[in-house]
Amino acid sequence: MADNLQLTPIAYIRTDFTEKFGIPRQSGLVDELVGRVVFEPQFRNPDALREMEGFSHLWLLFGFSKSVRSEWSPTVRPPRLGGNKRVGVFASRSPFRPNPVGLSCVRFLGIEHTEREGDVVLVAGADLLDMTPIYDIKPYLPYADCRPEATGGFAAGRQDYRIEVDISDALLECIPPEKRAAVIACLAEDPRPAYHDQPERIYSMNFAGMDIRFRVKNGVAMVTEVVSKKNADHLPTTVDKKDKK
Amino acid sequence: MADNLQLTPIAYIRTDFTEKFGIPRQSGLVDELVGRVVFEPQFRNPDALREMEGFSHLWLLFGFSKSVRSEWSPTVRPPRLGGNKRVGVFASRSPFRPNPVGLSCVRFLGIEHTEREGDVVLVAGADLLDMTPIYDIKPYLPYADCRPEATGGFAAGRQDYRIEVDISDALLECIPPEKRAAVIACLAEDPRPAYHDQPERIYSMNFAGMDIRFRVKNGVAMVTEVVSKKNADHLPTTVDKKDKK
Repeated sequence: MADNLQLTPIAYIRTDFTEKFGIPRQSGLVDELVGRVVFEPQFRNPDALREMEGFSHLWLLFGFSKSVRSEWSPTVRPPRLGGNKRVGVFASRSPFRPNPVGLSCVRFLGIEHTEREGDVVLVAGADLLDMTPIYDIKPYLPYADCRPEATGGFAAGRQDYRIEVDISDALLECIPPEKRAAVIACLAEDPRPAYHDQPERIYSMNFAGMDIRFRVKNGVAMVTEVVSKKNADHLPTTVDKKDKK
Repeated sequence: MADNLQLTPIAYIRTDFTEKFGIPRQSGLVDELVGRVVFEPQFRNPDALREMEGFSHLWLLFGFSKSVRSEWSPTVRPPRLGGNKRVGVFASRSPFRPNPVGLSCVRFLGIEHTEREGDVVLVAGADLLDMTPIYDIKPYLPYADCRPEATGGFAAGRQDYRIEVDISDALLECIPPEKRAAVIACLAEDPRPAYHDQPERIYSMNFAGMDIRFRVKNGVAMVTEVVSKKNADHLPTTVDKKDKK
């Protein structure tokens, strides 16, 4: 059909998440998450980023590469509604869509000039799995994209889901200092499936080459263990907040 | 390549613009523009729209179907910068991009139940050509998508471009009452190419089956003629503001 459109990845994003569990449910919720957008060789051209410095935020169009299903379903069950209520797919941001493209608003941190990967775009607040394909980057235009009058539908009450995080000093020591704030902020988003209320159950969040184990009781996520894994060579560069533009 | 992604139109939008000239340069600038999103038969399912009523705004992912070029260029020349300055394609919303997908934030007006086309999504503020392919509809989530702290880069000063519109009562009578506000609002956006300053030149904006002719002098668009055309059978339904939700 004439209007079918073939998308090619322009880049891949590198993040601290190698598994879906624990990824915040929208972009921007956890600003401490830093991602590196690494361009594919044929799109690695510094000119394509000219004047990007003038923008504070960017849109990433990405592929729900791990959520492709062969058939589309007209309804989905958003986790924030308890996983039982069905809503229309076009009234949701579910990954299970006829065209599995996602949209994330991220904060632009700057451009990192590298020998090996060319110019890399650094972003904060990305809710993306490591190695997610990126199909487009667009500047966030406040006059067109920011709509303070917009109202939010069924997801409006989501801030109620935040929980407290309890971690001992000894366990905190097991986490590299520059990753601590991100770990705590991701746990505070309550990564459990919404229909779970099993206070004794141990959950495991894979983050930055660590396995963060925790349970949730009375609205508090208590970290029980931090296990280091051996895949730390893929981690994104950590950007100190003070160095941000 | 594994992460190439084939998009299929889920719908086509019907608007009053059959030509590019006169279309506002971003979505939402002219709220009076009403568009009808008509689903393709295989995606015509009322369940897919369930709970959409709870949202005030939607994202449309669309194809820049008339702007496809075989090669991508790393830089573009935004019209609002005078058409001379080059900026990186990923620092612009230009249609000429490696993956020609556009992003428009529109106001959700409601769902029209029809015999012939099924459930049709009515939107306001669409900056789209008639029959633009739509690849996805997503709800606008204020808590993730609205970033009042965002700053705007080179396009920040765009409000300066608005001009006054002068139209005689006699010419206004030639425009159907429900289209008048949209015509005036589109002209006020100054549709001229930014590098034009030719006060005697007559421009022509094709809108809702009419040819609106005007010239621009001293910051005022003066309508000189309204010519009715014979292609009015494709017009979108006009929605009275009072009926909006």
